[in-house]
Amino acid sequence: MNIVLFSEKEYIESNVVRLRSRRFKHITQIHRVKVGDQLAVGQLGSLRGTGEVLRLSESFVDLKVTLTDSAPVALPCQLILALPRPPVLKRILISATSLGVKKIFLIQTNRVEKSFWQSSALKPDILKTQLILGLEQSKDTVLPEVYMRKRFKPFVEDELPNLIRKSKGFVAHPQEAQPCPKEFPVPLTLVIGPEGGFIPFEIDKLTACGFNVIHAGCRIFRVETAVPFFLSRIPIS
Amino acid sequence: MNIVLFSEKEYIESNVVRLRSRRFKHITQIHRVKVGDQLAVGQLGSLRGTGEVLRLSESFVDLKVTLTDSAPVALPCQLILALPRPPVLKRILISATSLGVKKIFLIQTNRVEKSFWQSSALKPDILKTQLILGLEQSKDTVLPEVYMRKRFKPFVEDELPNLIRKSKGFVAHPQEAQPCPKEFPVPLTLVIGPEGGFIPFEIDKLTACGFNVIHAGCRIFRVETAVPFFLSRIPIS
Repeated sequence: MNIVLFSEKEYIESNVVRLRSRRFKHITQIHRVKVGDQLAVGQLGSLRGTGEVLRLSESFVDLKVTLTDSAPVALPCQLILALPRPPVLKRILISATSLGVKKIFLIQTNRVEKSFWQSSALKPDILKTQLILGLEQSKDTVLPEVYMRKRFKPFVEDELPNLIRKSKGFVAHPQEAQPCPKEFPVPLTLVIGPEGGFIPFEIDKLTACGFNVIHAGCRIFRVETAVPFFLSRIPIS
Repeated sequence: MNIVLFSEKEYIESNVVRLRSRRFKHITQIHRVKVGDQLAVGQLGSLRGTGEVLRLSESFVDLKVTLTDSAPVALPCQLILALPRPPVLKRILISATSLGVKKIFLIQTNRVEKSFWQSSALKPDILKTQLILGLEQSKDTVLPEVYMRKRFKPFVEDELPNLIRKSKGFVAHPQEAQPCPKEFPVPLTLVIGPEGGFIPFEIDKLTACGFNVIHAGCRIFRVETAVPFFLSRIPIS
């Protein structure tokens, strides 16, 4: 937890927030604060700053917050991911969020097991937990939006053309591809397939939609490796 | 498993290997091969090629192998990692191996919990399993060498100067750092710290040894995100 995040509704006074449970435990047991100590804090969807420990009880901590700094710059990339296995999804949501992605589409493809859509990892609360962990890691305050699209064809035909209209589209795929650029043009829409890859029909649909097919050399990566690998090549203004 | 790997001692004839257990199960249950089918294969430490299914029993498969292609080019980077938590270590070993790293040092630093060194994840067999998974992912045949250094100071003072003599040294650290280059000079020695980072004494020792301190913008990543993020910026000849 490199930043302590709170939401607007946790204010108990105009500049005091009261934190319980996970954050309370972390602040008292890991940071081991005393009254008067200062912590890096941020208000979800808003500014960052410092929080001074005002009161410590057995179940909550009150922080007097002073918010002065804007959130870090977002990564100029929307990420479209074939829905990964649930434990991998959790890690990738943390990773992509910490990297600064603000729009994530989880989509069905031929090689995505349909049962993955039933996973509790996709429940809004559990999903949000991963996003918060990602923000806490990289001192960010702005939650990504996560969209789920359980049908590939309607998504690619009806929604994707509009989504990529103002960005450059790339899809990572090892066959019949160009080398990944050292630096992507931005804004970027990046598509990463499932373990086992896309089927030719899916690549055809994506290229017809304007996507460039790129590879990372002759190696094939796990999705959780591919995400930071490709996102590393996005310039930040 | 994008390639089926075997070792030299698994030959039962001059060009036939017999595979059991995990690989047998994978080949028969995931690839669902028949006699005559061909698979991508590789001999550990040697060439890659194709394996034709000669015989299928209930507990083994015999492949007639034809080895024609060299292993993919190694990443020109030795990676020095503060020993991560054991489950994270396992994933990072797979990830770094799939990215083509061939030399990995796991080191003690101030913020590495000493108990991590007792983990079964560091037992040679379990460690090798992760490396093999990484090779199978990226169709490689050459196992990385993994070294463990349980004392920071002797490692940095006595061994590291010699290790980086013919390479450029970089250490990822968010404070008092230069932006990470878009493309690293190679050969590269890259140091990545523990969750919580290095302490100033450690950074001083590394810079005294010739390392450049770099950051990835204002964001801080988990180690498993940082490894592919930074390794993505290494050019491959």
